[in-house]
Order: sequence, then C-alpha cells, then structure tokens
Amino acid sequence: MTRQELIKLIKTKQSFLCVGLDSDISKLPKCVLDSEDAVFEFNKRIIDATLPYTVAYKPNLAFYESYGIKGLISLKKTMDYLHAKAKGQCFVIADAKRGDIGNTSKQYAKAFFTPEGDFDFDALTVAPYMGQDSVSPFLEYAGKWVIVLALTSNKGSDDFQLFENADKTKLYQHVLGVAQRWGSKDNTMFVCGATKADMFTDIRRIVPEHFLLVPGVGAQGGDLEQVCRYGMNKDCGLLVNSSRGIIFADNGSEFDTAAKEKAMQMQSEMASYLKRL
Amino acid sequence: MTRQELIKLIKTKQSFLCVGLDSDISKLPKCVLDSEDAVFEFNKRIIDATLPYTVAYKPNLAFYESYGIKGLISLKKTMDYLHAKAKGQCFVIADAKRGDIGNTSKQYAKAFFTPEGDFDFDALTVAPYMGQDSVSPFLEYAGKWVIVLALTSNKGSDDFQLFENADKTKLYQHVLGVAQRWGSKDNTMFVCGATKADMFTDIRRIVPEHFLLVPGVGAQGGDLEQVCRYGMNKDCGLLVNSSRGIIFADNGSEFDTAAKEKAMQMQSEMASYLKRL
Repeated sequence: MTRQELIKLIKTKQSFLCVGLDSDISKLPKCVLDSEDAVFEFNKRIIDATLPYTVAYKPNLAFYESYGIKGLISLKKTMDYLHAKAKGQCFVIADAKRGDIGNTSKQYAKAFFTPEGDFDFDALTVAPYMGQDSVSPFLEYAGKWVIVLALTSNKGSDDFQLFENADKTKLYQHVLGVAQRWGSKDNTMFVCGATKADMFTDIRRIVPEHFLLVPGVGAQGGDLEQVCRYGMNKDCGLLVNSSRGIIFADNGSEFDTAAKEKAMQMQSEMASYLKRL
Repeated sequence: MTRQELIKLIKTKQSFLCVGLDSDISKLPKCVLDSEDAVFEFNKRIIDATLPYTVAYKPNLAFYESYGIKGLISLKKTMDYLHAKAKGQCFVIADAKRGDIGNTSKQYAKAFFTPEGDFDFDALTVAPYMGQDSVSPFLEYAGKWVIVLALTSNKGSDDFQLFENADKTKLYQHVLGVAQRWGSKDNTMFVCGATKADMFTDIRRIVPEHFLLVPGVGAQGGDLEQVCRYGMNKDCGLLVNSSRGIIFADNGSEFDTAAKEKAMQMQSEMASYLKRL
C-alpha cells in the first residue's frame, strides 16, 4: 500500500486506528475455544466487527510463535482472510521487531513481504540496533514499509533509548535522524510510544512528515488526545494502536460486538481530531 | 544446558565451534533437492558430519521463515533430530534476535524455550534496544540462555552501537555493563562480532566471565587467532560461529564430507588455543 493510498484510507474511514491482533489463546473467550482453530475464529470475528472503524491490523508474531507451527497456521489463515475479504481496506503490519545482518534481513524481507513466506504483510516493525544494512533489504519492496523502533512504550525503553551523547542527543533521536535517510517518508515509519506524549513535539521536529506507529494507548496508559495534539501532521501521520483494549474488551459470546463498540468509540474520537487538520 | 555442562562439553570435544545452520535453499547442493524435505535432509547430513567437532548449532530463523510454514516444519524436524540424536552433545541456539515489551517477550520465551513452541532451544539471541523488561522474561527458564547483541559483525554496527556519551562510553559498552546485571554469567551471553578483534580486550574488561558468541569468522572475515588471544577467559568463554564457511564448503554430493573437514580444521585450531588455558 502506498502512502497516498494509506492517507486516502484514513480520510475515507475518518480513522487512524490500528487494531493489535495479539490473540493470546489463554485470554480468548470460551465461545471460540471449541472451534477447530480458535485463534483464527477469534481473529475473523474481530476483523469482521472492526473493519469499518480501523485502517490497520497488527498481529504481533510472538502470540502466534508461542504455539509453534500451529500458531503460525492460525496467522496464515488470518492473513489469507484479510487478503481475500479486506484487500485495500486495511494496512497490515507484522509486529515482529526483526533485524539482522544484510544477507539475513533479505531472508526476513522474503518471509514477511512475499507470498512465498506465507503472509505477505504490508509492513514490518524492525529493531534498529544493527544499523543500516539490517534495515535496507526491507526497503527494496515497492509498496512495503519498514517501521523502525525509535521510542518504545515500555519501562525498559529508558535503559538505552535515552542514552545521550555529549551534545545531549538521545539514542532514539539519533535513530530518527539517521534511519529516516535510509528510505523515505514513502516506505519508512517509526514506532513512538504513546506513554511519552510530551516527547512527540521533539519527535516531530526530527521527522515532521513520516508516519508514526503509536502503541501504548489503552492498556499501557497512553492518552489519545495528547498524542494527536503533539504528534499529528498535515497528512495525519499517525497510526494509533490498541490491542487488549479492543480485542479483549469483553470475554463473553458477544466479544466481537464489544470490540466493535470500543473501535467505534476510538474512531469517533479520531474523527474529531482529524477535523482539526 | 548449564554453564558447567557447556564448559565440560568444550573440554571433552576440545572445541568451541558453533555451526550456523543458515540453510538457504537457493544454495543447497543439487543432491538433496529431490528429498521430500531438502532443508531437513541437508541439516541432518551436516549435523551427522560435524557433531564430533562442534559444541553448538545455531539455526538463523530467517532462513526458515523465508519459506513460511514449510520452512518452519524443516526447522522443527531439525530440532527433533537434535533432541533425539544429540541430546547433551551440543548446545542449540535460536538466532532470532527477538525482543518486545515484557508481556510479549514472555510469549517469545514460550515460543523458543518450551516444547509447546515446537523447538525447545537452549538459547536465544535478543536485541537489547527495548531494555530490561524485553529481556527478563527469557531469564526465568532454568537451563536456558539469552544471548544479547552487543557489538555485531556487520557494517551497520557503526551506526548506533558506537554512539557514545559524554564520558566516551559507547552504546555497546553501556549495553554490556547494564545487561549483565539483568541475569548472570550462568544464563546470559553476549554477541561480539569477530571482525572487531581489537575491541575484545575492552569487552573483557566489562564482562570478564560471560560467554561470548562470536559470529563473523570465515565468510565475514574475522580472525580466529585474534579472537582467542583477546577474547578467551579461564573457562574458554567463547562460542565461535561459522556458517557459510562450513555448511557450504562444497556444493557436490559429498558436501557433508567437506563440511566435516572444515569443522575438523577449526576444531583442531581451537584445541591448540584451549591448551593455552
């Protein structure tokens, strides 16, 4: 999906919501557990319920890999469903935080961006620690995106991301400054955690035009209004993720209706912020 | 596998060789391509040929994920084979460079360290960018190890790993200093690229006792003698990896014999360095 297509999707749906499909089997409602593939059944109902209100889905690979090959089959079915039923209606992100030496990242690009790898995602989150050649191979696929970790939403983000040089530049600022030159605003986004809304002004100084993927709204405590106030740019420039807050909004047989309501609420709030543009 | 068991294995085999099972299908010898599962057939013959000379195997996940679920089935068969035929005779590392927020890293720990995740590895490489809570969940499994990226062997390692603070401490040094306190020398190793042998003295100043996983010998140009001179400690403290230099030593029907010879050569050189201890 191109940047223009993504911006159009945001305008059409009046939403920049990303639903995190972190479909932890131990948290699934009982009503899906009898299905042949409970995770897929759950995802399918979540997608059907939330598609009108969301522009992106983001399965985190860990929740599938933890059930081995069986879990990855559930993910493949989910991706096949999205490709068949929601083509062009959503942007799909593999939250996998990959990155390796160039020769190896090429293989990861194949794994995530081609049908041969079984998933054919639109975008992949990558960890920047290994530098340019660990990220460049992902930028060679037209219409595909890398989403580079900059400032994450967890407590441990302080350990290294705030490490600063003699000029008081923090590592995450250095990552934003350097990594934006590897690709362009048309194929690169950055992960910026929503629990750090006060830092968005600074982030926008470094990357005014890039899209930011913002996790941490909801269960992790981030504030949507603050994120929009300081993080939005003229093209919106945000994808705001909610995982547990939407998909596990209710644990009963009507879990999908509850998820739909939560997604609608967020979309409605987002529409009001989009009007400010 | 405990630290003492690993040290004993090194002494018994007089080797600290790790064979990287980066079994890229496009590089496999023709003679295995007719097999039902070419990657598994290749790995099996490489393992059979090299097991007496190596203490560790390290499949890089990218080379399996790039063929989707089919590739991961080849990896599972390889792991099942190692568990059945080589139990206690080798240490098996998932080179996957994972790491996510705590809740998610827990799932990755299950994916790599339990039978439920299908592989049950001894160790996992992790990227440190997201900090302590992204690594701690892996340290809760007795007998399992995390191998934290510190100084990698690729060109891009300069981009961020050498970023330095006002005291001239570089990021990789800071990572070594901080991450060693999350666990202990009994469950934590560090990746230190062999193309940077001159930095090993400095690394040993920060982590004198930890094991180091050293990639980059062979195809990537590192020098084994230099690595041992500056990187070895009283327990050996090194696992030196070679991937392409061993597994693709020859492309004919006797590829496994060629791999065995390369592994033997390295083991023999390693035995001479172990005598210095």
